[in-house]
Amino acid sequence: MKDRRAIYQYIEDHEAEHIARVQEYLRQPSISADGTGMSECARLLQEYYRALGCREVAEVDVGGYPFVWAVYSCGSPKTIINYSMYDVQPVEGEVWSSPPFEAHLQERPPFGRVIVARGAHNSKGGYRMWLNALESIIAVEGKLPVNIFFTAEGEEELGSPHLPAFIDRYLSRLQEADGVLSCIPCQQHDGGIRLTLGVKGIYEFRLECSGERWGRGPEKHDVHSSMKAIADSPVWRLIHALSTLTTPDGNRVLVEGFYENAASPTSEDLELIRDLSSQFDPSLWQRTHRIRSWADDLSGQDLLVRFMFSPTLNIQGIWGGHTGAGSKTVLPHKGSCQIDIRLVPGMTVEEVHDKLRRHLDRHGYEDIAIFPLGGYPPARTSLRTKLVQSVVRMYRDRGITPQIWPLSGGSWPMYLYCEDPLRLPYCAGGLGHGGGAHSPDEYLVMQGNGTVAGLVEAEKSYVDILYNFVEA
Amino acid sequence: MKDRRAIYQYIEDHEAEHIARVQEYLRQPSISADGTGMSECARLLQEYYRALGCREVAEVDVGGYPFVWAVYSCGSPKTIINYSMYDVQPVEGEVWSSPPFEAHLQERPPFGRVIVARGAHNSKGGYRMWLNALESIIAVEGKLPVNIFFTAEGEEELGSPHLPAFIDRYLSRLQEADGVLSCIPCQQHDGGIRLTLGVKGIYEFRLECSGERWGRGPEKHDVHSSMKAIADSPVWRLIHALSTLTTPDGNRVLVEGFYENAASPTSEDLELIRDLSSQFDPSLWQRTHRIRSWADDLSGQDLLVRFMFSPTLNIQGIWGGHTGAGSKTVLPHKGSCQIDIRLVPGMTVEEVHDKLRRHLDRHGYEDIAIFPLGGYPPARTSLRTKLVQSVVRMYRDRGITPQIWPLSGGSWPMYLYCEDPLRLPYCAGGLGHGGGAHSPDEYLVMQGNGTVAGLVEAEKSYVDILYNFVEA
Repeated sequence: MKDRRAIYQYIEDHEAEHIARVQEYLRQPSISADGTGMSECARLLQEYYRALGCREVAEVDVGGYPFVWAVYSCGSPKTIINYSMYDVQPVEGEVWSSPPFEAHLQERPPFGRVIVARGAHNSKGGYRMWLNALESIIAVEGKLPVNIFFTAEGEEELGSPHLPAFIDRYLSRLQEADGVLSCIPCQQHDGGIRLTLGVKGIYEFRLECSGERWGRGPEKHDVHSSMKAIADSPVWRLIHALSTLTTPDGNRVLVEGFYENAASPTSEDLELIRDLSSQFDPSLWQRTHRIRSWADDLSGQDLLVRFMFSPTLNIQGIWGGHTGAGSKTVLPHKGSCQIDIRLVPGMTVEEVHDKLRRHLDRHGYEDIAIFPLGGYPPARTSLRTKLVQSVVRMYRDRGITPQIWPLSGGSWPMYLYCEDPLRLPYCAGGLGHGGGAHSPDEYLVMQGNGTVAGLVEAEKSYVDILYNFVEA
Repeated sequence: MKDRRAIYQYIEDHEAEHIARVQEYLRQPSISADGTGMSECARLLQEYYRALGCREVAEVDVGGYPFVWAVYSCGSPKTIINYSMYDVQPVEGEVWSSPPFEAHLQERPPFGRVIVARGAHNSKGGYRMWLNALESIIAVEGKLPVNIFFTAEGEEELGSPHLPAFIDRYLSRLQEADGVLSCIPCQQHDGGIRLTLGVKGIYEFRLECSGERWGRGPEKHDVHSSMKAIADSPVWRLIHALSTLTTPDGNRVLVEGFYENAASPTSEDLELIRDLSSQFDPSLWQRTHRIRSWADDLSGQDLLVRFMFSPTLNIQGIWGGHTGAGSKTVLPHKGSCQIDIRLVPGMTVEEVHDKLRRHLDRHGYEDIAIFPLGGYPPARTSLRTKLVQSVVRMYRDRGITPQIWPLSGGSWPMYLYCEDPLRLPYCAGGLGHGGGAHSPDEYLVMQGNGTVAGLVEAEKSYVDILYNFVEA
């Protein structure tokens, strides 16, 4: 086993410079929602890859904001793909205690010093720590122990619409890899680790009921509400159509066959969930989300099984007619509803789209349009792969027992790496803690407090993951 | 019968000055939505009443924008109340062919010259023509043939929230009156007249379903939509609650007892509707409102009976969660819906509120809040009163057969004058034509084209209504 102490020492000796590099990356705005700073940030990232000694560094246009592709080659028999995103959420309308793109250091009990900035936690702050770790290895050892394909996108916050095209373009190169690794700060407030082996798929779409498509009610504009006495209402129609989609409590989907292909948890999944339910306290979620009681008053393992293995049909938003202050006596000509369906393993986007369309048609709602906004299938990786075990070992060597989640409730296009044709193992792991993603005063811990790691211990953990994998 | 020719001649001789007075009044903005010019306009109106020779002229504060109260006394045995509004709709976001408060004259085929201005049609333009007519009578005859209580409000576009308090304050004075008269341009594009004998009442309110009041789902803010697997959704709850309120077509209200007090049309109403259905072409409405077919494919008399005598439950607007562009994977903590219920004679606001509350409670929706926004009962006046007959006679003397509508589909707090305690007849009538209320390029015809009257013929019609009433 490689003696890593010189690298650790190097990281300790360069703490101040490493913090400064994190600040530098965060001070470059990169808001994909409105384009602010996107090309500047893509250029900065290319500089970082060149500084590592990457031979190939390219800005790749497959539509949308550019991808950054870089290749680090050192003749190692092992190769990883490193995925990252360089875009961040917008800050419009938010109130911050310090400007979101100045990346100030603040004392934040109980964590000690933190950087406050948009992207600190999600996810440029942690990414720059990973690059610091790689630079430290190279400074001490002369080179990295693995080859790396760096793949960075600028549209994660937009739902990664061009990631499939990018993967497709580099497919033959990516097939050389042994796994996909993202070293990021994964610690919760209490230092605990959640390691997730899969994600749900998602299908997002807008349902629209309009008088024009229906051929009844006002077709072109809202009309005076006195007309309701003799005119049909597209908004009422939308409400009645929606009401056919779920049970009255909104929790069970009534679209025919919706659940038929949803995979049940395996016995291995159930075992992991049993372990997890003794570690995970759902009252944490209740406090964070301000939810008093769960659907159907679920608790314990049942709650976790439902969270991970139940597909959902969620209304993100609904709107139609007058939505401002005061009253406006109109009969609206149109009603809209935005929905996300989360897919569990076994389900596909095409399948749920077709079943929904059939449901609406059978109920006489042929005119209600489904406008797809995007989607992709679920994906899973196995706990037993060397890559995942390398990450688990890093935690166990530090006395940390990670919570292992067979599936996450959320979605990410992990299928591109883990399903056909690449079929690679995938793991995200590492020490460090941040918070406030998509919120004001987003932060990343620099100092640490013995419970959560600061920058130095986080970077050491990334070094260990890399060497564990090489040595596995 | 009074020989009115000298007054007619006076009006003809002063056409240019009269047009200038209309422009003057329209050039004074009076936007109750944001307060622009409201006090200046109230002062201008008081000057107008003083110029008529009113002894009492007062700005009356009963909350909100001031009312203007003025009394013209001439010792006549007959007294009328004249209602008017001096506020207009906002113009924000609208594109006009000439500035909305410059009141330019434009050629507008087929009407000849028109004034284009906010308030031209609704309703300051016509009101200044009425004052011109009164000034003309005084110039020729030395005085008016009736006493007048002028009551002008600045909050009609806000739903007349303080009109009840104003009427209440002047109740003992108003009880001296014989009727309520509004002389305004009432001609449609084709010169036809609609005379309305009543209005529906209205109850406007917001329904809100929130996680906080419900005690389930997210209580304080929208949460990540992955939580839908285990968290209840207030928006789904709102949709299912709304779906219990009507039949699936959205046209028949299922709130228990909703229709039980709704008066059926009398045989006199049905006779008027029979006459009306031979005159009124609903395809006009279909073109204006862009509606292809009516609810339940109604037509003819059935359509008119439903329009006038059916109470309605209309959704003005619905909103909740993410309503902007793109996607946002949230589970919203709240959903809202704004509704207007139109009441026909026999129904009260309190009754429909209570029935709706009971309906929601019985269906288990005790937590869904009803926030009242305002409302008032319906009202009717009789065709057989001298006041209404004076207006009808003016039309008939000109060969015009007015369309008589027993009830309007719309609402206005006419009950304050026509129901207890005043119980006065009410009529709005007169020649002239305007259009574009609440829209860009609102206009009032000045020249006329033989089909619709211009300013001179409109003012003469107001003179006739007044003398017809005195002589009745």
